[in-house]
Amino acid sequence: MDLAKSFTGKKVMITGGLGFIGSTLAYRLVEYGAKVVLVDSLIPEYGGNLFNIHGLEDKLTVNIADVRDQSGMDYLVQGHDYIFNLAGTLSHTDSMKDPFTDLQINCVAQLSILESCRKYNPKVKILFAGTRGQYGKADYLPVDEKHLMHPTDVNGINNMAGEWYHILYNNVYGIRSCSLRLTNTFGPRHQMKHHRQGIINWFIRQLLDGQKVKIFGAGTQIRDTNFVDDVVEAMLLAMASEKTNGEVYNLGGTPLSLKELVEKMVKTYGQGEYEIVSYPQEAQRIEIGDYVANWEKFKRVTGWEPKVSIEEGLAKTFEYYSKNKNNYW
Amino acid sequence: MDLAKSFTGKKVMITGGLGFIGSTLAYRLVEYGAKVVLVDSLIPEYGGNLFNIHGLEDKLTVNIADVRDQSGMDYLVQGHDYIFNLAGTLSHTDSMKDPFTDLQINCVAQLSILESCRKYNPKVKILFAGTRGQYGKADYLPVDEKHLMHPTDVNGINNMAGEWYHILYNNVYGIRSCSLRLTNTFGPRHQMKHHRQGIINWFIRQLLDGQKVKIFGAGTQIRDTNFVDDVVEAMLLAMASEKTNGEVYNLGGTPLSLKELVEKMVKTYGQGEYEIVSYPQEAQRIEIGDYVANWEKFKRVTGWEPKVSIEEGLAKTFEYYSKNKNNYW
Repeated sequence: MDLAKSFTGKKVMITGGLGFIGSTLAYRLVEYGAKVVLVDSLIPEYGGNLFNIHGLEDKLTVNIADVRDQSGMDYLVQGHDYIFNLAGTLSHTDSMKDPFTDLQINCVAQLSILESCRKYNPKVKILFAGTRGQYGKADYLPVDEKHLMHPTDVNGINNMAGEWYHILYNNVYGIRSCSLRLTNTFGPRHQMKHHRQGIINWFIRQLLDGQKVKIFGAGTQIRDTNFVDDVVEAMLLAMASEKTNGEVYNLGGTPLSLKELVEKMVKTYGQGEYEIVSYPQEAQRIEIGDYVANWEKFKRVTGWEPKVSIEEGLAKTFEYYSKNKNNYW
Repeated sequence: MDLAKSFTGKKVMITGGLGFIGSTLAYRLVEYGAKVVLVDSLIPEYGGNLFNIHGLEDKLTVNIADVRDQSGMDYLVQGHDYIFNLAGTLSHTDSMKDPFTDLQINCVAQLSILESCRKYNPKVKILFAGTRGQYGKADYLPVDEKHLMHPTDVNGINNMAGEWYHILYNNVYGIRSCSLRLTNTFGPRHQMKHHRQGIINWFIRQLLDGQKVKIFGAGTQIRDTNFVDDVVEAMLLAMASEKTNGEVYNLGGTPLSLKELVEKMVKTYGQGEYEIVSYPQEAQRIEIGDYVANWEKFKRVTGWEPKVSIEEGLAKTFEYYSKNKNNYW
């Protein structure tokens, strides 16, 4: 598929556009000559960071707004060909401590964006960023899209509903949409202030800070990993294809135990140590065990495969933060 | 299981307690000597009706409140041994017209009740009333609990989330809970003012009004039916057993095409006619096709089986409304 052709001159909105994946996507879309609007609320502790679009400032539009603001969204959705709907909370533990905020952002706001589209832009196509957290503890590995959803935290439940509103609006109102269920994504532009939105980047920070990496449990729990560029590629492919309408897909790439992952990091960075520590209770009780994604369905439809090896991805990530530490620490 | 023994002297709250199933449950609980509090908001067009507890007024407590009122619920949940959490919207079409109200009642309020219990009554057991609408169009029949949930309307999505909050709070916080996924339940005490909360009772009203029953589509679509007393029995059994904690179960009983169902009604009532009319668009696009429940899992654990035949159930329903028409029309 010729992605440049699909997006050149197209009007594209990205919610959560100043965040990790949203901003990385913005670079690609600007490169393709799309007219890009980033919507982000810059809530402290979430992922938004103006430095994420360093160098792009004059090539796109930034609109600071909260996806929970329904009348704002009624206006903002208008005129776009595509909406990458990436705004959402990501923290498993935060969602347990403050379940209502998680619900407002991942359910109410999602429904609200869809209602805005139904009223003011029914021709748009929307991509929703789902999560492997929707599955909860795996009944079998690798997990395919036929696996039951039985989330182990509030965030997983709200994403399950948020995703399904999209599929429903596709099926009932013909507002084309699809969902990618993301696994552990890492790379440049991820927030680095706390560990609650992604453990891989947090390990990297600990190493860059010269601290011992703390791995909870035995370190044997498996996570499936994707470098951010591969996820962005998947999103562009999913958006550009009409075959994805109304469908949900897993992404995945390199499954590794946390211990193996940190060992690779230490090797890449050239130094560092880790230690195995016991789970804090709040993490233990929502722990999902091993997760490996089956992403054959998505590959079949779009031809997508992750291209960046874990070593290459880690090297790029270390390089980025070594250089830009002061904008993320 | 000796249900009387399980509930005698127990403190029991029923949300949606003035509604169809809640009030029918109240009669049983009062008979068993439970101390019953009914919470209901009496929202017009929903199912609450003070006549539903005719004869019980001095034997239980009625508290008019909305489950969306978080501080009210913080107080109301206290001290109960059991909460039958039946408050919720039921209308597929209403949920499409006003998705936010449906979300507030079926998601936000459910989470809020669970948070109230976590803070003020973690020893309680809660039963959630789920729905076959969570499954959407069946991939196979009969539908068991391993069937994927892919709802065809907003109500189904919100119930899917609302149910799963309960299971999550069981698993994470030890607040015992279970869910019964109800199918088409009919019988006395159902609201009779409109068709949007249950087609079976609406057919009965049309016959009692001497009107031709209007069946959408070809009349061949299959629905699984339960008489309300069997559903109440199931709820009592599910609540009284510790084996149901953290589990979800289908209910079901007599699957029938709508045409067969109406023919049985005409036979029971002794008169009446029906006609096949085409679907209104709003119903067509969320129509689920045939549904038959597999309820073996629940039978295995509790021994439950529906006892009331469709003929007997219909006869009781006609008799009730013939006598009490003025309180429901």
